[in-house]
Amino acid sequence: MSVNRPAAALVDVPRGLAGVVVTDTEVGDVRGLEGFYHYRQYSAVELARTRPFEDVWHLLVHGELPDAERATAFAAETAALRRLPDEVRAALPAIAAASGRSGPLAGLRTALSLLGAAQGFRPVYDIDADRRRRDTLVAAAAVPTLLTALHRLGGGLDPVEPREDLSYAANYLYMLTGSVPDPGRTRAIEQYLISTIDHGFNASTFTARVITSTGADVAACLVGAVGALSGPLHGGAPSRALDTLDAIGTPDRIDAWIRERVLAGERIMGFGHPVYRTEDPRSRMLREIAESFGGSRVEFAVEVERRVEAILAELKPGRELHTNVEFYAGVVMELCGLPREMFTPTFAAARVVGWSANVLEQARDSKIIRPVARYVGPGAPVAVPEVA
Amino acid sequence: MSVNRPAAALVDVPRGLAGVVVTDTEVGDVRGLEGFYHYRQYSAVELARTRPFEDVWHLLVHGELPDAERATAFAAETAALRRLPDEVRAALPAIAAASGRSGPLAGLRTALSLLGAAQGFRPVYDIDADRRRRDTLVAAAAVPTLLTALHRLGGGLDPVEPREDLSYAANYLYMLTGSVPDPGRTRAIEQYLISTIDHGFNASTFTARVITSTGADVAACLVGAVGALSGPLHGGAPSRALDTLDAIGTPDRIDAWIRERVLAGERIMGFGHPVYRTEDPRSRMLREIAESFGGSRVEFAVEVERRVEAILAELKPGRELHTNVEFYAGVVMELCGLPREMFTPTFAAARVVGWSANVLEQARDSKIIRPVARYVGPGAPVAVPEVA
Repeated sequence: MSVNRPAAALVDVPRGLAGVVVTDTEVGDVRGLEGFYHYRQYSAVELARTRPFEDVWHLLVHGELPDAERATAFAAETAALRRLPDEVRAALPAIAAASGRSGPLAGLRTALSLLGAAQGFRPVYDIDADRRRRDTLVAAAAVPTLLTALHRLGGGLDPVEPREDLSYAANYLYMLTGSVPDPGRTRAIEQYLISTIDHGFNASTFTARVITSTGADVAACLVGAVGALSGPLHGGAPSRALDTLDAIGTPDRIDAWIRERVLAGERIMGFGHPVYRTEDPRSRMLREIAESFGGSRVEFAVEVERRVEAILAELKPGRELHTNVEFYAGVVMELCGLPREMFTPTFAAARVVGWSANVLEQARDSKIIRPVARYVGPGAPVAVPEVA
Repeated sequence: MSVNRPAAALVDVPRGLAGVVVTDTEVGDVRGLEGFYHYRQYSAVELARTRPFEDVWHLLVHGELPDAERATAFAAETAALRRLPDEVRAALPAIAAASGRSGPLAGLRTALSLLGAAQGFRPVYDIDADRRRRDTLVAAAAVPTLLTALHRLGGGLDPVEPREDLSYAANYLYMLTGSVPDPGRTRAIEQYLISTIDHGFNASTFTARVITSTGADVAACLVGAVGALSGPLHGGAPSRALDTLDAIGTPDRIDAWIRERVLAGERIMGFGHPVYRTEDPRSRMLREIAESFGGSRVEFAVEVERRVEAILAELKPGRELHTNVEFYAGVVMELCGLPREMFTPTFAAARVVGWSANVLEQARDSKIIRPVARYVGPGAPVAVPEVA
């Protein structure tokens, strides 16, 4: 009883398509039992430790790490795409004014949609692979510009024009604050961004691929993904982990606060992940980055982590629970001077590269993704009643 | 090898999720072998023949047809939502100016995203069912206003403000042209709109449901669906069927033109559908509507249909091929004075009600839709090479 198939051919699968293989991919994967995830054939954490963001972006959309010459060319190509078309820049104040109540991802959703239209993006099946890739670069390179401009406009400040001579990460912080950031903060946020580009299949990536499968343009695909990321079940909120630190307040209150929550069966924001049974590899890297900054805030965070794990081991023995990516991501972003409302948008500024790789891979397929629904309502047809 | 499951639990299914049951639904269904489709328990064609658009909208989002009193109240409620917030109206010239090259659905995608933000839409899991429904009404009621305003602005004309005293269909044509349409054209476009509200599960509906499943706001869900609809494999183009009529030109050229195409193995736009083995029930209704107008254009279209079927029966015996919904939809929209670039947007102005019903149904679930991908790239990890 479905649009595509007679009833006999229906395939029942787990709810929410859990475990259902919708596609093959060469973009990357997560191996939760091993505490490992990778982009293409490389450890994502190793990439974050050793490479600039632009190299990893090249890896994702071109399929290979660039050599030195290509790396320079790619960095220049994408840096030149940071500046917005005039008609998009002109519309941003209106978008910022209208988007205050639904949050920065709603603003990005609108502005990115406008950018794609202004750039004349065409259906992915009507253009060749080079043009598709170029469209993803145009869109992704503009995301930091759009996000920071909307943020500043929302706060009554003029946008800061992008600079081509700065790296992706440095330019992002620069456009946010108007000051060139120090190398330590730049590298910290760059490593966070690299570690967040992709993470296996997830609802926003899947959304991007479903829209791509209809042949829609790159902006339609990415805008849909931004929408999915804005859902609380997906995008999460790295700021919630900081809310936990704020709620505890001081080191002497850690134990009492945690015990109360654990005994009440409440979730502690920043802890636990549906995939990793080990420590989240992103957490480990971000904690090291945080510790390299030092300071009382970092010491407090590390102490909270230590005490949560100890108290859980005591009260819920056998249940291993570690910090998830949100916990130290929040700490690192705070150390880098990002305001909390920009935490999830910063996530989006990295993930747009992962979506791009998935859009490009999906566009090489030509099969629409279209499952079916099983009608379970009252039997049809019932005669339409006369108007009472 | 996936984010959610150990390898053993992976479920392989047909490519593109064809035939895979992703959800139960009470919204409606298509029974292709019978040439029948329905909304809730009622034949969609019967609804189109007997009810106003607003009643069917009520059926979709409230789950039942309204009695006379409720019908009046619902029509008044939705009519009052046609007027745009000032900040959205103010942004439309900029959106229209930027959207010319990517087409009207890119403009709608942007404007609807802005509208949702301006209305302060919140995540669907954070609001109750009444508020969710209200958000879908706010969004859907504004779609004709957005589409017609962008269309007029694109042509250098001022938008026409909506009128609350006109029906959904009449107000749509009124906003497009600036004149109140005659009852015959109003009813024809109304019947087209009703017949297009929903049609089983499809890629835009599925997109809306995936985004909903993350808990995102109603605008995020509908904007994603607009994006999917803009894909050539999905939204199609009712104008292509008119292109066929134009290409043939005059009745005396019908046979030669068709024979040449059929013998060359080319597809004839406006004919054939992946679902219906019988005549498409929408086609039948739309042909009757067209014939009620009469005139040489309609006679020509009917003759083309008759000759295509006869020539196919002769050259490809055993292969039944009928007009699809695009063929007479194009003829009817042309008769009603719609310009061709507004054909697919008009489709969207109806389908937004079907998406709404699907968003509301999905929001009652709380399970994220998240399938997996199988990594088939080179084995990981490979050591990240030193920069050359």
